[in-house]
Amino acid sequence: MKQVYFDNAATTPMRDAVIERMADVMRLQYGNASSTHGVGRSAKSLMETSRKTIASFLNVHASEIVFTAGGTEADNLVLRSAVRDLGVTEIITSKLEHHAVLYTVEHLQKQYPITVTYVKVLENGAVDINDLERLLQSSNKKLVSLMHINNEIGNKLDIQKVATLCKANKALFHSDTVQSVGHYDLDLQAIPIDFLAASAHKFHGPKGVGFAFIRKGSGIKASIFGGEQERGYRAGTEAIHNIVGMEEALKLSYANLETERSHILELKTYFIVQLKALSPGMSFNGGCENSEESTYTLINVCLPIAVEKGGMLHFQLDLKGIACSKGSACQSGSNQNSHVLSEILSADNLLKPSVRFSFSSFNSKAEVDYVIEVLREFI
Amino acid sequence: MKQVYFDNAATTPMRDAVIERMADVMRLQYGNASSTHGVGRSAKSLMETSRKTIASFLNVHASEIVFTAGGTEADNLVLRSAVRDLGVTEIITSKLEHHAVLYTVEHLQKQYPITVTYVKVLENGAVDINDLERLLQSSNKKLVSLMHINNEIGNKLDIQKVATLCKANKALFHSDTVQSVGHYDLDLQAIPIDFLAASAHKFHGPKGVGFAFIRKGSGIKASIFGGEQERGYRAGTEAIHNIVGMEEALKLSYANLETERSHILELKTYFIVQLKALSPGMSFNGGCENSEESTYTLINVCLPIAVEKGGMLHFQLDLKGIACSKGSACQSGSNQNSHVLSEILSADNLLKPSVRFSFSSFNSKAEVDYVIEVLREFI
Ligand SMILES: Cc1ncc(COP(=O)(O)O)c(C=O)c1O
Ligand SMILES: Cc1ncc(COP(=O)(O)O)c(C=O)c1O
Repeated sequence: MKQVYFDNAATTPMRDAVIERMADVMRLQYGNASSTHGVGRSAKSLMETSRKTIASFLNVHASEIVFTAGGTEADNLVLRSAVRDLGVTEIITSKLEHHAVLYTVEHLQKQYPITVTYVKVLENGAVDINDLERLLQSSNKKLVSLMHINNEIGNKLDIQKVATLCKANKALFHSDTVQSVGHYDLDLQAIPIDFLAASAHKFHGPKGVGFAFIRKGSGIKASIFGGEQERGYRAGTEAIHNIVGMEEALKLSYANLETERSHILELKTYFIVQLKALSPGMSFNGGCENSEESTYTLINVCLPIAVEKGGMLHFQLDLKGIACSKGSACQSGSNQNSHVLSEILSADNLLKPSVRFSFSSFNSKAEVDYVIEVLREFI
Repeated sequence: MKQVYFDNAATTPMRDAVIERMADVMRLQYGNASSTHGVGRSAKSLMETSRKTIASFLNVHASEIVFTAGGTEADNLVLRSAVRDLGVTEIITSKLEHHAVLYTVEHLQKQYPITVTYVKVLENGAVDINDLERLLQSSNKKLVSLMHINNEIGNKLDIQKVATLCKANKALFHSDTVQSVGHYDLDLQAIPIDFLAASAHKFHGPKGVGFAFIRKGSGIKASIFGGEQERGYRAGTEAIHNIVGMEEALKLSYANLETERSHILELKTYFIVQLKALSPGMSFNGGCENSEESTYTLINVCLPIAVEKGGMLHFQLDLKGIACSKGSACQSGSNQNSHVLSEILSADNLLKPSVRFSFSSFNSKAEVDYVIEVLREFI
């Protein structure tokens, strides 16, 4: 059967070169990076090279990169410590954030006497910057947590503007950049951001590894306790193979950024044109039709299909070998509507099936054609 | 140069079969286990097979195994939730625990109004069971956290006895079994324990993955918030390759348990004999000379070497290609004495150099001979 993987926002296939490097590391570099003998130092040196390489892509110091077991842990690390150790009493975020942020904030709200405010979101899924500016006037010690690229609808935050605004208003700024690191150039000397979270499996790297950027002198402290790994930011023996795999994946992503971006953008544009040709009733959720407002890596389309037929759509696509999703993978199992779409869609459109198709450089136009043919049967 | 790796309690070299399976999974199974389409379900099914296999070795239900990013995270998960969600107001532990337990408990003590009591430790490094029985009389809601095998001195807890005692006294019982899973058979239907923590890299598996056993109905809740992975116990996209690698490693460890155990025990016994032949002044820390009281996988020896010369010992061993350690890897960098040895050694012996040599089935008698020759120059 034909297989089309259009769910790259959920996770990406790994690059062969990444797998090979990881296998080499597993074979040859078995040391514990905390051991002081030669075997340990060799592992440590590999890991520190990875840290330096990753830091260089973001234009930050190696000591500002803390390795974690993924994007979720990185978000948790920053948000929890901001409240526990930095005296943050107000978190400003949005209802469109990933659950790694939303649920952590809700948990913190139960544990600490903090205020949580949700910035207004425009109809197109964009954060209302004027509302943010208004919220930033409060006299609380504030942390703003707003994602760079929305994983469901692809909206892109003006991270430079928000960072500058936060700085001017003495608010800390954290961004969940899980969908943008590896896909966008981020120069953190130019962007006055305090923290960010990234995850390797979103850029053709291994699952279960990511990092937090924590700007020097921030005062963030660990949330997992034990050994002195990661200079005290995060206890637990480091997964050298995963870290090196993440480095390799990020290197390749940035080395090929321009060519891959234009290939992917072409697919996306072509897909949109074909969808519109299929039916004038297509509507694109969030800002994903607009290449300025949204990432080049995904579309989220609301299909003009009646409820009765729509319920079977994902099942049928799956039967045809097409991997795509309703929303974020981690809520795929549930029958609930996506919390993101629920915020921005009309009641009418919420009843129709929405599908997120997300791309990588491994995809082709022929795959788009195949999906269009399959969709044609439904419309 | 000759290379002898005698630091298997810090971490173990991976088995080739484990690396191969992981590489295959990385190549072929790139799905996100939370995605509902075929690619995701296939990843999920692999992961659930791993969970079942691992559960079967411990004779528990698959649903009682929660995958984590290692032993540290598993310890943290259990201890934190016990206090936060289960109403535990007293933790009984010992000063000889790994920092993953000790520092987590200290952190909890700062955050919550809990009592922490440390059970007495005998001169040979064993937990004083009579003292534990006395402590268990308190009327607080209690959690006992005592490791099965001590990672520095090798002492083995009578886990069956302690579990039974805890149960009789209505205390919850958690054990850090990071040094014993893969090295000892544990039948958790026979042992009435509530929780345990394990880590793959201690049994020739990958680093950065482990698991917690959480007995059904315990009420433990997540400490990392986000997606609904691991049935809500632990958010974050699962590292399928690492999980499958852990399964493969555990399978091979248990398949070869008896032959490998007798090989390693022979090495240990031979090493002790050779050390004693070197000098009558050798003293073995904790219970490690006694095969009943201690694990077969390590010795911790206090060498009859004067302070002046002793300071250079680890450096010299490293120069000769011998990887061993002063204590646990995660405090290797520091000049402080091991917190474990500080508890049990006399002031005199604390001044002499102690070395932990820890073995795996990859080691040989010839390696022991080589180390003995090198040590001879010092004694
Ligand atoms: C007894 C013990 N507990 C916990 C740990 C931590 O495990 P991990 O490094 O997988 O986090 C270790 C080893 O590092 C250990 O020896
Ligand atoms: C925007 C966003 N944040 C956080 C995460 C969580 O990252 P991880 O799965 O590596 O924990 C994801 C994806 O899963 C994501 O898309």
